[in-house]
Amino acid sequence: MEQNKTIMEYETVALDDADSALVVIDQTKLPAVTELLRLHTAQEIWDAIYLLKVRGAPAIGVAAAFGIYLLAKGIDAQDYETFYRKFCEYKNYLNSARPTAVNLSWALNRMERVCTDNRTLPVDEIRRKLKETAVAMKEEDIRVCRAIGEHGLTLLKPGDGILTHCNAGQLATCKYGTATAPIYLGQERGYRFRVYADETRPLLQGARLTAYELQASGVDVTLICDNMSATVMKNGWVNAVFVGCDRVAANGDTANKIGTSVVATVAKRYNVPFYVCAPTSTIDMNTPTGADIVIEERPAGEVTDMWYEKPMAPAGIKVFNPAFDVTDNDLISGIVTEYGVLRSPYTESFAKLFEHL
Amino acid sequence: MEQNKTIMEYETVALDDADSALVVIDQTKLPAVTELLRLHTAQEIWDAIYLLKVRGAPAIGVAAAFGIYLLAKGIDAQDYETFYRKFCEYKNYLNSARPTAVNLSWALNRMERVCTDNRTLPVDEIRRKLKETAVAMKEEDIRVCRAIGEHGLTLLKPGDGILTHCNAGQLATCKYGTATAPIYLGQERGYRFRVYADETRPLLQGARLTAYELQASGVDVTLICDNMSATVMKNGWVNAVFVGCDRVAANGDTANKIGTSVVATVAKRYNVPFYVCAPTSTIDMNTPTGADIVIEERPAGEVTDMWYEKPMAPAGIKVFNPAFDVTDNDLISGIVTEYGVLRSPYTESFAKLFEHL
Repeated sequence: MEQNKTIMEYETVALDDADSALVVIDQTKLPAVTELLRLHTAQEIWDAIYLLKVRGAPAIGVAAAFGIYLLAKGIDAQDYETFYRKFCEYKNYLNSARPTAVNLSWALNRMERVCTDNRTLPVDEIRRKLKETAVAMKEEDIRVCRAIGEHGLTLLKPGDGILTHCNAGQLATCKYGTATAPIYLGQERGYRFRVYADETRPLLQGARLTAYELQASGVDVTLICDNMSATVMKNGWVNAVFVGCDRVAANGDTANKIGTSVVATVAKRYNVPFYVCAPTSTIDMNTPTGADIVIEERPAGEVTDMWYEKPMAPAGIKVFNPAFDVTDNDLISGIVTEYGVLRSPYTESFAKLFEHL
Repeated sequence: MEQNKTIMEYETVALDDADSALVVIDQTKLPAVTELLRLHTAQEIWDAIYLLKVRGAPAIGVAAAFGIYLLAKGIDAQDYETFYRKFCEYKNYLNSARPTAVNLSWALNRMERVCTDNRTLPVDEIRRKLKETAVAMKEEDIRVCRAIGEHGLTLLKPGDGILTHCNAGQLATCKYGTATAPIYLGQERGYRFRVYADETRPLLQGARLTAYELQASGVDVTLICDNMSATVMKNGWVNAVFVGCDRVAANGDTANKIGTSVVATVAKRYNVPFYVCAPTSTIDMNTPTGADIVIEERPAGEVTDMWYEKPMAPAGIKVFNPAFDVTDNDLISGIVTEYGVLRSPYTESFAKLFEHL
């Protein structure tokens, strides 16, 4: 690891120069240690996604795209049928790593279409196109996040207090983040925002990642526990909430990190606008409502002991550990996409948007 | 420490048989280690309260009463003026340990009145009456908690799901707890409640204490992170929320552990009744509204590293760490006292109650 490099100078997800490994920052070790992981096998890539070494819906999508490209490159076949059968095996395996974020299946489906759309070409040509597509998806992610930042910034004024939950930051994307994009663009322009970062139990993405990357960028950031949101809002310190999302249903219901709907409920009580930042790739028109989104449940140990040296819960205690929750559309003031800020009724706003894409 | 004794068999607060030490369970070491502390000096007692070795509004009150009795016993004076001056010094010192819970000053004021009401008696007689009063306060606490349990139980039916926040349990009182009293009485009567215990960041009183004492009593308890309350309520698993309190203002606004008002806000959205369990000693008619309650702020280290072996926040991060929040009276479905369940408008309910006491 090079010395004196801040976290902001690393890429969250990259293909190495030799075109042989998917390189990600091991986010489970931040902020104590900045370690780059070089992933080669399907199992390594699956583990990195499942264990949240790479996390954040957009970053998972790009990591999966690079990952399946590398795996496709290694398929020992020159005939399309064999190649495609093995490709689909890898795809289904990687897709099983996490169920809630739509970006994982979205990215893998898009990569699969590169195969099926080009089935008449030589397999090596398909592999080349897979790489092109994965690289394009990364560039797109950066463009999309920047555009979300520009649109989000129109909802803010200099000096505003912004509360965010979990990490929808640079570490969750290829650059800028989604919820943090307006903060970073505002920072470049001297807006001097005050940011409140929910620590985000159980895995502390807010404390370990959001507080870290904002602090490293010189943003005024204050860490709070998740249960302090009502206090900072009641004190009048928060002008807007910005969060990311893992899947937006066709009616605007939004799955995001567990606790997001709690923040949204509290924001409504204190009349603080609540914005979801969503690349259009996260809007899933095949999911009618939030009730149709599968919510991942994760191991009890994340709650009882992952971060602790002393036991902080009694041995054998029963734990419920859903990784996400759904925020009902009536709690959402606006959904900030790369094309602009969408407002309720979302079903109509989405229809209008997708009609023109 | 005797083997095979469960946490439920220890007393939270006691005077030792030799009448020489205040004995408390060191709650900062639970659930890993059950250690009894023997406290003698003013500094030891202050530290135990400030450092949350003994905590919970009612338990703090009784600990302070026993504590000031022991200190009064040690005052080297037989004339009232000298005795009383020193008594007040101790009282003011102990009272400074924690500002939010009214029980601390309530208990100390009651002990002071024993002095002033008996100023014409010999000082040794005053000391004897101080002990009597402290012992009576402990017995009262047990009676009051049991009565709160009986009244709380009328709001529940067998099989109900109950969510609680922080620890308003046996470990926060001398027996039964306040919010847990209906749960323990229901358990004795075969009600088979399902309890959801918020872990309660930053100090994890829910995970370490509530989950522990309920589990040790055979109650069906599930640990969740604070930000999962909306999920369990939306799933229909919670029939009522029961919490304790540190101070109830004259209009019903209630200060309790940070995050309580978040739970109350979420409960309102999902039409789950939200009950505050309050011994009448916690109702402070001298505090007009929640805005008049001083909220203790505690050190950043509680959030950034107290429970962690790995750094879980970047070095030097700014932290806001209020220990309590205020739940506005409109979010409270009822206040369960030892005299019955009080309903809004609380100003009138309190007036009627205190008129008859």
